[in-house]
Amino acid sequence: MAEWPLPPSSTIGILGGGQLGRMLAAAASRLGLKVHIFCPEANAPAFDVAARATIASYSDLSAISEFAEAVDVVTFEFENIPAAALQHIENIRRVLPSARSLAVSQDRLSEKKLFDHLSLPVAPFAEVASIETLELAVANIGRPAILKTRRLGYDGKGQVKIDDATDLAHAFAAIGSATAVLDTFVPFTSEISILTVRSADGEIRAYDPVENAHENQMLAESRVPARIPVSIAESTPEIARKIVTELDHVGMLAVEMFYCMDDTENPLLINEIAPRVHNSGHWTLDACLVSQFENHIRAVAGWPLGSVRRHCDCVMVNLTGEDANRWPQLAADDSIALHLYGKEEPRQRRKMGHFTRLSRKT
Amino acid sequence: MAEWPLPPSSTIGILGGGQLGRMLAAAASRLGLKVHIFCPEANAPAFDVAARATIASYSDLSAISEFAEAVDVVTFEFENIPAAALQHIENIRRVLPSARSLAVSQDRLSEKKLFDHLSLPVAPFAEVASIETLELAVANIGRPAILKTRRLGYDGKGQVKIDDATDLAHAFAAIGSATAVLDTFVPFTSEISILTVRSADGEIRAYDPVENAHENQMLAESRVPARIPVSIAESTPEIARKIVTELDHVGMLAVEMFYCMDDTENPLLINEIAPRVHNSGHWTLDACLVSQFENHIRAVAGWPLGSVRRHCDCVMVNLTGEDANRWPQLAADDSIALHLYGKEEPRQRRKMGHFTRLSRKT
Repeated sequence: MAEWPLPPSSTIGILGGGQLGRMLAAAASRLGLKVHIFCPEANAPAFDVAARATIASYSDLSAISEFAEAVDVVTFEFENIPAAALQHIENIRRVLPSARSLAVSQDRLSEKKLFDHLSLPVAPFAEVASIETLELAVANIGRPAILKTRRLGYDGKGQVKIDDATDLAHAFAAIGSATAVLDTFVPFTSEISILTVRSADGEIRAYDPVENAHENQMLAESRVPARIPVSIAESTPEIARKIVTELDHVGMLAVEMFYCMDDTENPLLINEIAPRVHNSGHWTLDACLVSQFENHIRAVAGWPLGSVRRHCDCVMVNLTGEDANRWPQLAADDSIALHLYGKEEPRQRRKMGHFTRLSRKT
Repeated sequence: MAEWPLPPSSTIGILGGGQLGRMLAAAASRLGLKVHIFCPEANAPAFDVAARATIASYSDLSAISEFAEAVDVVTFEFENIPAAALQHIENIRRVLPSARSLAVSQDRLSEKKLFDHLSLPVAPFAEVASIETLELAVANIGRPAILKTRRLGYDGKGQVKIDDATDLAHAFAAIGSATAVLDTFVPFTSEISILTVRSADGEIRAYDPVENAHENQMLAESRVPARIPVSIAESTPEIARKIVTELDHVGMLAVEMFYCMDDTENPLLINEIAPRVHNSGHWTLDACLVSQFENHIRAVAGWPLGSVRRHCDCVMVNLTGEDANRWPQLAADDSIALHLYGKEEPRQRRKMGHFTRLSRKT
């Protein structure tokens, strides 16, 4: 059993080697901790800043065993970890956040049921398992609605909008006839996220709520402070607290919500959670004393949490695909902090970097 | 010839693998750049965050060649690079900062002559090459004075104070009878450093001047803003500008000075320079948009400089030896940013980490 909390020079194992793993690794280095990245792709961005790396498939259980034995705790940068790999690791090393956080966030239906159970406001939804249940669900919820697979959806993948003209058989086929959830289409004013962190001791802190703008179903821009009434902003930490407490979650967790200005009863509707560091929290690297990445590392290493205080207002902008070719101009802009992920190929919709524009705190 | 400026995914070679190399590596990762560390010690702190590492002696010229060929530009975290290694690299790859910066800063006498040449105020000094020249120098400069080896001194090593009672033969023996400089003992009010950066295009920026406190001849604490009159603070960028311009320096450079409150003619006396990132600039990691480490990487990669604007007041405190065992209490202190270097053995006087206490900008 590893010493707990993990002392400096311990090794955090991270499943996934993308930009989130890369920024987690850089944050771990601030605290004198090492990381060991497990990732199926060679040349993954996180390898550049990792003390050790394993390139292997998540189904290679002998590589998984060796990895788990070489580290002091295991965490992850994405929630869709294959269940077999996870169970295998849990027999060898502590995995944080909790198995419950992962199980719930891997399944949209479990998520929605959790929000209901916690009496958190969610828009009407229905379970869909067949074309017949889809027809019934649309009859109940009305159009427009959004059909989303229960599992493995992200950045707009695995979802389809159901308009007045949409043929339901086509829609169900479009998501691969997978088990799904039908969501009410919410005519929101803006999308809000709360980034919260819970320590192994149960301490909870939340960063200021973030206002997000999406383009092509991917996060394009995050703005802090969010343009929402103060009373609503002040209600967000309690929402996050209920969720992380119920899940016995340890580490960062993002709650995504819709803000509906004209809905006086439920101005915030909970949409989904991500049990990890989140793209809408990248601004914390430059506008806070301790970033979401460092706070995640602190939590999974059993350390006390760091300050979530914000010293600047800011707007974070994602650089996808060829956006990143603008790096020489962006590097010359004095009012931004530029972050590039070291990915060589600027494929379309690929997240290549981001920048944060800072301004005096209002 | 590498593309210039170096595009993201290029590799910066760094000579030296200590905490400065470690923080340079983390800064490079923000910009999508990789680092390759060259260092004689196994388990060097920078290896944890480097894409590649070479463990070899600086006198192993075949390892040096292989390293130089594997990278796109070479920089260093310490100025005492053996000349043979440096010349060898220069035949293969561009080395930044300039050879002149290195040559001057490796030799206290050249440094002093440079300050004289630039008409910058320095306290009287004299060259010492023998016991006879030492006697003559002490007769001219008076006691107390400080005898310092011309080469290889740092953190109080290679220097001895000459008081009224000091036997000169003993003092000369104490510094190994090396060629030396005799410095006037300056009864300063405080020690000040300026951290400046010059880009490959000749653009120059300086961070706000820093007030430093030493203990046991090592830096203990750096405070910003320095408690010096505004007019004096405002004169510091010009001092730095003269030096980096004369040296055709590229990258970070620290100028260390004495502030003498009662000397109305020369309130600042230049002491020495370091042609690299510097311990008295660690606060820039937490109190500025772009740190000294990132600005050094930007400069040596041919990029535009980043903002040196400071958003908080701060005090940086070094953690040496067993100081670092306090990490659990320090990690729980909400008003500081904690940095540990991943060194396993807390030897006395060994720099294990630092923290920065931030407060609202005055």
